Amino acid sequence: MQIWKEYQERNKDRFLNEMLDLLRIPSVSAKSEHKTDMIDCAKAVERSLLEAGCDKAMVMDTDGYPVVYGEKIIDPAKPTVLVYGHYDVQPAEPLELWHSGPFDPVIKDGKIFARGSADDKGQFYMHVKALEVLVKTDSLATNIKFLIEGEEEIGSPNLGKFVAANKELLKADVILISDSSMLSMENPSLDTGVRGLSYIQIEVTGANRDLHSGTYGGAVANPITILAKMIAGCHDENNHITIPGFYDDVYESTGEERELLNKAPYNEQEYKDELGVRELWGEKGYTTYERTGIRPTLEVNGIWGGYTGEGAKTVLPSKAFAKISARLVPNQSSDKITEKLLAYFRSVAPPSVEVKAELHHGGEPYMTPIASNGYKAASKAVETTFGKAPIPVRGGGSIPICSILEKELGIKIVFMGFGLDNDNLHSPNEKYDIYNYNKGIETIPYFHKYFAELSNE
Amino acid sequence: MQIWKEYQERNKDRFLNEMLDLLRIPSVSAKSEHKTDMIDCAKAVERSLLEAGCDKAMVMDTDGYPVVYGEKIIDPAKPTVLVYGHYDVQPAEPLELWHSGPFDPVIKDGKIFARGSADDKGQFYMHVKALEVLVKTDSLATNIKFLIEGEEEIGSPNLGKFVAANKELLKADVILISDSSMLSMENPSLDTGVRGLSYIQIEVTGANRDLHSGTYGGAVANPITILAKMIAGCHDENNHITIPGFYDDVYESTGEERELLNKAPYNEQEYKDELGVRELWGEKGYTTYERTGIRPTLEVNGIWGGYTGEGAKTVLPSKAFAKISARLVPNQSSDKITEKLLAYFRSVAPPSVEVKAELHHGGEPYMTPIASNGYKAASKAVETTFGKAPIPVRGGGSIPICSILEKELGIKIVFMGFGLDNDNLHSPNEKYDIYNYNKGIETIPYFHKYFAELSNE
Repeated sequence: MQIWKEYQERNKDRFLNEMLDLLRIPSVSAKSEHKTDMIDCAKAVERSLLEAGCDKAMVMDTDGYPVVYGEKIIDPAKPTVLVYGHYDVQPAEPLELWHSGPFDPVIKDGKIFARGSADDKGQFYMHVKALEVLVKTDSLATNIKFLIEGEEEIGSPNLGKFVAANKELLKADVILISDSSMLSMENPSLDTGVRGLSYIQIEVTGANRDLHSGTYGGAVANPITILAKMIAGCHDENNHITIPGFYDDVYESTGEERELLNKAPYNEQEYKDELGVRELWGEKGYTTYERTGIRPTLEVNGIWGGYTGEGAKTVLPSKAFAKISARLVPNQSSDKITEKLLAYFRSVAPPSVEVKAELHHGGEPYMTPIASNGYKAASKAVETTFGKAPIPVRGGGSIPICSILEKELGIKIVFMGFGLDNDNLHSPNEKYDIYNYNKGIETIPYFHKYFAELSNE
Repeated sequence: MQIWKEYQERNKDRFLNEMLDLLRIPSVSAKSEHKTDMIDCAKAVERSLLEAGCDKAMVMDTDGYPVVYGEKIIDPAKPTVLVYGHYDVQPAEPLELWHSGPFDPVIKDGKIFARGSADDKGQFYMHVKALEVLVKTDSLATNIKFLIEGEEEIGSPNLGKFVAANKELLKADVILISDSSMLSMENPSLDTGVRGLSYIQIEVTGANRDLHSGTYGGAVANPITILAKMIAGCHDENNHITIPGFYDDVYESTGEERELLNKAPYNEQEYKDELGVRELWGEKGYTTYERTGIRPTLEVNGIWGGYTGEGAKTVLPSKAFAKISARLVPNQSSDKITEKLLAYFRSVAPPSVEVKAELHHGGEPYMTPIASNGYKAASKAVETTFGKAPIPVRGGGSIPICSILEKELGIKIVFMGFGLDNDNLHSPNEKYDIYNYNKGIETIPYFHKYFAELSNE
């Protein structure tokens, strides 16, 4: 549509600058020191929704950080699209590895470097600007609702309750989420599912205080050594996960499904070069896309214990800790896997230490049907603006809220992400390409157009 | 000697307060931010030596932190005792576990709580005050030299060179060190040796940046998992160390030696209760005293990698680190063991990661002959003030400088420590009992008296 393109072109600098302003707010949900920033960010999102053309927008309380809701209802009889996104971001640490401030966006080589640029501020904001395009060109064919939460990066502990309590307000025909990536701009793709998550923390305690490693070493258990043994035992020599029962409910993809998945363009040497590794690592018998898509995984996200400062300290520490998470695939259950993980870590501990294993958060895996109107509308929209039909792929990440949203609202989710795998999500120097940002704003209006058309068929 | 006792009694409050002043200087050699404190501390030690009665004292440069030298020469023909100590202390972290400031000494239940109270400021300062007692009562029977260094806690990297360059200045008949502990005040003991040390740091690198654990997890090696496997492989199921060749040169104690060692009072239930553990841990086939005395050990002193902050972050980290040290027994060589450790960590790494393994510092094990005049003088001194002959035991800690001092100066070392195993050396809430401090000042003059007598025989 020429009028959309023209409006976007005329306003693209402002569209960019508004997004940069949002990136400047350090809305880190995991760290309590950012409480005020979180509220400021929610208010900024509310304002942006009103300015873009929402009839109504509001910051709504939860037991944790607030949800921002907004709506533009053109006709209750028309189909309604619920846009989900999140205004919170991952912690920026380790800060010393950033080339510029994580909350001080810098543009370099056409890329916006800042925490949250791709995950998810830059992506959900495309929907805010797409709404503006549609409203200002008077061409909106659907009702639009926005549900922008502030606790996605900590596992959305309060969203289930919020959605259950606001079913009428959130009533819609499809949920549209831009919080994922494409294979590349040349090979556009759409995720047909996300993995689930079980995230736990382990605390191993030996003696009741740090000890001198000369006086007590060799006679008292070292919690780091014990924790290392526990972690080492999680994968066998083929990198299969050894937690008892871990694979029990895994949906085994058919040969056909695996074949389709492996048709996606992939160059192992380029993949390795881009990551700077000599060899890849993974579960024997599966390809890289299978390992990150259809297979569950177990990763240690963090470990610490003893002296970690400059120089040397001959301490035999009292405690060691690890953060460990599993990515789950259909039909695994987050609760069940969490139980198995906790049981494993509690059971393998020798009597010379005490182990505390606790759930951080979890989320269920999710699959979206490619036969649905929502997926079809997204596929057609991408084909229109990219000139190429998107490849359906299985995303490796997790959006724990998916299964909750579907359960509470009874509608399907469509993933239409415009990020790239090398966006450094959750890492230093997170970035989002300006090209992708603009491409998203260009594509989203077509989704609404096609979804309205398909719904009327 | 009644005059010593009287002088000490009259001055004991000042003796204590002077030591507390020294504890207030945060002389942490491992952390470069304490550079100025280190120099301040060296100057304070120099001043205290002059005030106690040294004819001469000076702060002497090295390539690292300075050495403080002092001397009181009564007669070049008389035997000379060289007192070694160190004015640097271990880092105080983790700070949150201290009940009071580590550099803000607090006295509670007759104990001085502060970093360095037992290791080693409180202990070497006993010698400074013992000198004052001897000088002021005009009863010094030996010459005394002081060699107080500032880099013991980082492995004394510059002391070897310093001693080699100052052999004439440091010329003595025996070296006396108070930097160890006794079994208890009821069961006084003297260490007849210290263990050696090999301290290394490992850095494991996977991808060239932190990654999103959902996008890449399962397809790229996790350096924490790899490091955990490497550490887990260091001990077998009997807690024997598996590093190839690790035990090759270990001096195997005779049955008689082990019997003598195991005669030292030991109550396993009390030992466990004091540490708050249900079970002990250690090399199969050896008792606790054997494990900490005559057997070499391997401990992880610190580990870190990935996200270690509050909450959850689903990162697949680029790097993981560990600080690892081995305690060595006679006839192991620190250089040889360090090579074996580095080789092990380099060789077991899979090609999916890069491993950097580097030496932090090392030191040779040391044994002191109980037939020497030095040991005999110490034993007699302890017997005089404790009313009980001390038990000779093998200390678990390391004083890397021992073998260097002996090699360069050609004289033997006597360990006469007045600490206790529960002094929390290298840990939060390090303490030193005022009783022990005073007992040390009371005992040391007898060492000089008996050493002079034995030397004249």
